[in-house]
Amino acid sequence: MNERKVKVTRRGADRLQNGHLWIYRTDVEDVPAGVEAGDVVALVDGRGRFLGKAFWSARSKIALRVVTRDEVPVDEGFLAGRLSDAIALRERAFGDEPFVRLVHGEADLLPGLVVDRYADVAVIQTLVPATDRRKALLADLLANALSLRTVVERNDVRVRELEGLAQVKGVLRGPEPGPLEYREGAVRMKLDVLGGQKTGAFLDQRENHLRAGEYATGRCLDCFSYAGGFALQLARRAERVTAVEMQAPAVALLRENAVLNRAENLEVVESNAFDYLRDRADEEPAFDLVVLDPPAFAKNKDALPAARRGYKEINLRAIQVLKPGGILVTASCSYHLAEDALEGLVLDAANDAGRRVQVLERRGAGRDHPVLLGVPETRYLKCFVLRVV
Amino acid sequence: MNERKVKVTRRGADRLQNGHLWIYRTDVEDVPAGVEAGDVVALVDGRGRFLGKAFWSARSKIALRVVTRDEVPVDEGFLAGRLSDAIALRERAFGDEPFVRLVHGEADLLPGLVVDRYADVAVIQTLVPATDRRKALLADLLANALSLRTVVERNDVRVRELEGLAQVKGVLRGPEPGPLEYREGAVRMKLDVLGGQKTGAFLDQRENHLRAGEYATGRCLDCFSYAGGFALQLARRAERVTAVEMQAPAVALLRENAVLNRAENLEVVESNAFDYLRDRADEEPAFDLVVLDPPAFAKNKDALPAARRGYKEINLRAIQVLKPGGILVTASCSYHLAEDALEGLVLDAANDAGRRVQVLERRGAGRDHPVLLGVPETRYLKCFVLRVV
Repeated sequence: MNERKVKVTRRGADRLQNGHLWIYRTDVEDVPAGVEAGDVVALVDGRGRFLGKAFWSARSKIALRVVTRDEVPVDEGFLAGRLSDAIALRERAFGDEPFVRLVHGEADLLPGLVVDRYADVAVIQTLVPATDRRKALLADLLANALSLRTVVERNDVRVRELEGLAQVKGVLRGPEPGPLEYREGAVRMKLDVLGGQKTGAFLDQRENHLRAGEYATGRCLDCFSYAGGFALQLARRAERVTAVEMQAPAVALLRENAVLNRAENLEVVESNAFDYLRDRADEEPAFDLVVLDPPAFAKNKDALPAARRGYKEINLRAIQVLKPGGILVTASCSYHLAEDALEGLVLDAANDAGRRVQVLERRGAGRDHPVLLGVPETRYLKCFVLRVV
Repeated sequence: MNERKVKVTRRGADRLQNGHLWIYRTDVEDVPAGVEAGDVVALVDGRGRFLGKAFWSARSKIALRVVTRDEVPVDEGFLAGRLSDAIALRERAFGDEPFVRLVHGEADLLPGLVVDRYADVAVIQTLVPATDRRKALLADLLANALSLRTVVERNDVRVRELEGLAQVKGVLRGPEPGPLEYREGAVRMKLDVLGGQKTGAFLDQRENHLRAGEYATGRCLDCFSYAGGFALQLARRAERVTAVEMQAPAVALLRENAVLNRAENLEVVESNAFDYLRDRADEEPAFDLVVLDPPAFAKNKDALPAARRGYKEINLRAIQVLKPGGILVTASCSYHLAEDALEGLVLDAANDAGRRVQVLERRGAGRDHPVLLGVPETRYLKCFVLRVV
C-alpha cells in the first residue's frame, strides 16, 4: 500500500495525461533505493503530485507501466477486478464463446499480461517482471474465475529478454493439457499449447477468418496459410481453395486440419507465397478471392522500407491473379506500417496493375484484442476486405 | 463512339494516374466547340494520349468524371454492365437482402448516380448532367435487371444546384410507390420515398444499427435518433432505451416506428441532444450504452473548427453518462473530419473525463456504400464501437 515514490519528468507526466500508460527510462527522474524489478510504485510529478501506480521494470527501456490512476492498493483484489473486467468485455462481445483472448495486456489495463482461453485451458504470458512475479496468483485467479482445468505459461517469447526474464514454458496449474482442439465457427483446429512452435493460435484473426469465409466462392487462394485459419473457412463455401505455406511444420498442421474438417476441396502447396504468386503473373486471372496474411515484414522501423516493397509486391501480384470483381483480403500485423500506409501501398499496386479497388471493410484485430486509445502500440493488425474491379 | 477529345493538364493526368476519377475545371486545357453538359468525352494528355472517357459537366468545379480508362463505347450496354457489376457486389456481401444501396456513384464507377433499393421500389438520384440526361434509360435498365415495380427520382437535393440541375422528384417508371415499409434485420421501419423529408433511409448505417443492437443491455441512450435506426435495434435487447430527437417530423416517425415494432421499452424525448446530455452531466453515470449519430457538423472545411468543438462536447458528455464498462457507439458523417481526427477528439474527451477508452471496432458505411481507393471523397462515414472503463 505504501508504495515507494518514483518521480517522473514533465514530459513523462504529459504522456500519462494524454492517455498513455508507459514511462520511458529517460523520463524517470528519481528512483528511491530498494525499488526492485516487479514492484508496484507510486508515480509523482516534480511537485510530488500523485499521477498513478505503475509496474517497475529494472531493465526495459519502458521503465514504468501504469496500472491505475487511482490511489487504490494494487493487490489480489485489484488484479481480480481487472481480470473480471476483461472477462466481462469478452462476454459482451462474444457471449460464451470459449476460444478467446481473455487479457490483452495494456489494452485491458493489465500491462505485461496476455491470456488466451481455449475452453478449460488458459495460456498465459507474463511479459514484465511485475506480472511474472505474480504469475502463480494470476493463474489461481483465472482458474477460479473460469473453472479452468489447466493454466500453462508460454513464456518462451523473445520480448521477455528485454526485461531480463528467462525463456520458460510449462504447466502452472492442473494436469498437462495434452493436444487440444478449438473451433472458429464451424471449423475445427488442432492446437498443442505446450508442444507447438507458436504460443497459441492466431486468435486476433478469428473474426477476420470467419468474415473472409462469408465472401468465398469459386476458386480461392490463401497465402501464408499457417494452420489454415483462413483457408478452412474459405473451403466451406468455395469450389476449390489453394493454401500456400512455406514452413514444413505449419504445412503438416494445415494438412491435419484439412483432414479434420474433411476439406477435400483444399489443396496445400508447400511454397513461398511470393514465388507462388510470381509464377502466376502471366496467367489469366483465375481467382475469385485471395487472402494475404503475411507475417510481420516490418519487425522494427529500420525494416520498414524493405517491408513496404514486400507488402506492395504481394498485393500487386494478388491483384493480378484476381478475376474482375474478385475479393482481396489483405492484412498486415506490422505495427510500424500504419493503416494509411498499407492503404497507400495497395492503391499503388492497383494503379500499377491498371485495376480499381473498392474498400468494403476496414477491419482490425478481433474485439478480444482491443486497442487502448492513447496507446498506439496496442494497434497493430490491419485487415482490409477489398473488391478488385 | 467518336467522342470529342478534351485535353487535360499534366496535373490532371497525374491525378487520374493516381487513381482519382475527377478532373477540376482548372485542369482542363482545351475543350472543343460543341461539347455540351452531359456528353461523354475522351480525355487526352498534352501529347494526345488517351486517358479515359468521362462525363462532362459544364458548370461544376468538377468538370470531368472518368467512367472508364478503356477505349470502349459508353452506351446502353456499358451502363447495363456497370449496373450489373454494382448489383453483383451487393449480392456477394448481402445475398438477397432487398434493402440496399445499389449504386454508390463514383465508388461503383458510375459517377453522379445513386440508387437505393427498397424491395421492388428503387429511388434514384442523378447528380450530374450525364446521368441526369440518361435517367430514363437508367430507370429502364434497373427496372429490367431487378424486376422492379416502381422507379422514382429524388432529385430534390442541393448538390444538383452546383451542376445547374433543377430540384425535382417524381415517378420515372411504374405506379406511385405509396408508403413503404423496409426492414433492418428484425426491425421494421416506415418510409415514404416521395413524401418524406429525406430522400430515403440511412442505409449507410444499416450494418452499424444491427451491430450496435448486439451490444445492447440495461439502459441505452440514442442521441440524434431520427427515425430510430439505432434505437429500435437497441430496444430489442435493452431493458430501456431513450431516443433523443429534436425535429418534430422525425419524432413523429420515430414514435410510429416504435409502435410498429412494439418497442414499449423505448422512450422518445423531443429535445436537443446537447441539452439532454448536458442536463445529465451531474448525475451518476446511468447508461450501459450510448449512441451518437449526429448530422454532419462540418459540411465544409470552414465549419471544421466549430464542428470539432461540437463532436468533442457530445463525446465528452456521452462518456460522462456511461457506467464503467459501458459501450459508446460514436459516428461522424463529416467527410472533412477524418477518422484520425475523430479518434483524437474522443481521446481528448476521455482524458478530460478521466476515463479510458478501448476501441472494439472501427467501422464505416455499410458494404453497399464502398469506398473507392484513390478517391478519398468517397469515404465519409466513421463509426467507432468503444468501451469506456
